Amino acid sequence: MVGPARFMNLLSCFELGIIDVLRENPGMTAAKLGDAVGAKPDAVEQLLHLLVKEGFVSHDEGSGAYALDALAGVAEADLRRALTYMNMIKVVALRQLFYLTDSVRTGTLVGLKELYGAEGTLYGAVADHRDLRESWATLMDNVTANIDPWFFGNVDIPAGARVLDLAGNTGLGAIHTYQHKASPGLRVTTFDLPEKEKECLENFRAHGVDEHCSFIGGNVFEGIPKGFDVVLIKHFLDMFDKDDVFRILQGVHSSLEVGGQVNIMVPVYPENIKDTDNYNVDFFPAFFIGCTMAQGGPQKLSTYRGWLEECGFEVTKAVTKDPAEVPRDVIPVQAILCATKTA
Amino acid sequence: MVGPARFMNLLSCFELGIIDVLRENPGMTAAKLGDAVGAKPDAVEQLLHLLVKEGFVSHDEGSGAYALDALAGVAEADLRRALTYMNMIKVVALRQLFYLTDSVRTGTLVGLKELYGAEGTLYGAVADHRDLRESWATLMDNVTANIDPWFFGNVDIPAGARVLDLAGNTGLGAIHTYQHKASPGLRVTTFDLPEKEKECLENFRAHGVDEHCSFIGGNVFEGIPKGFDVVLIKHFLDMFDKDDVFRILQGVHSSLEVGGQVNIMVPVYPENIKDTDNYNVDFFPAFFIGCTMAQGGPQKLSTYRGWLEECGFEVTKAVTKDPAEVPRDVIPVQAILCATKTA
Repeated sequence: MVGPARFMNLLSCFELGIIDVLRENPGMTAAKLGDAVGAKPDAVEQLLHLLVKEGFVSHDEGSGAYALDALAGVAEADLRRALTYMNMIKVVALRQLFYLTDSVRTGTLVGLKELYGAEGTLYGAVADHRDLRESWATLMDNVTANIDPWFFGNVDIPAGARVLDLAGNTGLGAIHTYQHKASPGLRVTTFDLPEKEKECLENFRAHGVDEHCSFIGGNVFEGIPKGFDVVLIKHFLDMFDKDDVFRILQGVHSSLEVGGQVNIMVPVYPENIKDTDNYNVDFFPAFFIGCTMAQGGPQKLSTYRGWLEECGFEVTKAVTKDPAEVPRDVIPVQAILCATKTA
Repeated sequence: MVGPARFMNLLSCFELGIIDVLRENPGMTAAKLGDAVGAKPDAVEQLLHLLVKEGFVSHDEGSGAYALDALAGVAEADLRRALTYMNMIKVVALRQLFYLTDSVRTGTLVGLKELYGAEGTLYGAVADHRDLRESWATLMDNVTANIDPWFFGNVDIPAGARVLDLAGNTGLGAIHTYQHKASPGLRVTTFDLPEKEKECLENFRAHGVDEHCSFIGGNVFEGIPKGFDVVLIKHFLDMFDKDDVFRILQGVHSSLEVGGQVNIMVPVYPENIKDTDNYNVDFFPAFFIGCTMAQGGPQKLSTYRGWLEECGFEVTKAVTKDPAEVPRDVIPVQAILCATKTA
């Protein structure tokens, strides 16, 4: 019940610059902090109560002095990543969630429509709205940079393979594939909507991989290109309800020869939904349905395994990242499924 | 970080009618629930994950059947009160909190302005906007009805006293005063902005107390009427920063004769701000500053006691409601301070 207030109270202390000022000048009072950040001292004192309660900031009642407590021990990179998450949730989700019930009923993103006049999904809206784009893209780049090494450490890409990165956006996944799995003759192709082509090819050139990477424009629901040995599906299946996941997996199946491989990375719910060691169940349903796609959400690893088998694949590997290895501020617990077309 | 998503996921299951349907028909699958409430089964399944995780709803993996778990044992009145709170937070706070930082910087309610075009405080905006008014008034009536018996059980109103209910809105506090403390000659006067007079007098007539109750129009910051033995200040001081609280207390002091009494009810923070047995610190700072007043927030009981003494009162009673007696869904932990003008 107090979740929304807690969320913005904490984030606002960062946005106002209170935490940065305290880091530079420990021991300031609410009056001095108010002067420094351009806020009334009464408001500073009110907002800092929560941070004192949580042990993030210390407060000396006698002198009125504040200083960083637990926050002093958080590494800069960890703090920046957590704030990137919080900013994305603020911009992409906080107001939009108000309309969650209407979004469920209509199967559309009512919040995006009301707040931005946007039809369609978040992925369309980010093209037109800078605040959405910046908060979303910053987080996604962060997520990709942190998780891709784990993905490529776990999947096998045969030397010289022809690899298709399904829904590969503007090429980052293809670039990472080449960088992590370079071999003589390896070719990686990004497959996404035609309007991504220009930026994608620029990215290939900027990273010096344009001789090894290419782009094909199209729509995954209208036909997946043939002629590839390996298909990668990263950060994608969780965006869709079961019927569309099946259309995607069946499309990949049609595009591959027998023996062809698909390597999937997707956030998963714990097998026991009551597990409390991650927050995926707490976040993704409302986030996908109310804020990004008006459908979708992760499944359990066992569900994805079953769906792959139903679509004609043999699952050769299925691993979930240990939640204990995921920083507490990183919400998705990712899994990798590797599978081979058997018939 | 997942607070906003958890909040709306839970509330949305009620808004969609999923919980009511499950109460009537335990054992329904996501497919049947989706049919019953007009939502895609995939979305129903996603949103119910959190309720299963929290033990509110049970799920049989084999049959896919859902049934109420802990929610089955919640009394109807308790559930209705909790939902009244959640609806108020959704309508009055969820989207508005997005603008908290700007509200702190400008000392204005940027969220109310952006979302409703409203200038001023929530108390002005509720007059013009039905959704705000209904969610807010429903909660406030609920709060008042639940807490006023405790207040009147703890304060002394001498027989035949002339009582002023400061910022008494449309008379509910005056009506309760007469009902709880009736004595020969007791007169209770509601003091609030002149535009409240008509509705207030109607309320007095409707409750049959119009012979004992009256209304005076005015502004607490421009002069408090004299000629009263007892002043009540309920649900009001927490709306203001220290300078305005002092103006109010000094105004009350000026209006009273020596020996006159003031009885205050106000939510308070725990003396040890790190106490975890209530959520006042988690909720009120962001709520007052970002959603209702652009200032204010409760203080500790000891702070209010000190402020009363600074303003020329002797505190004769200061009690805080035991948080253990407050239902878990009721956020404010109220305190009563009784004081006498000494000089």
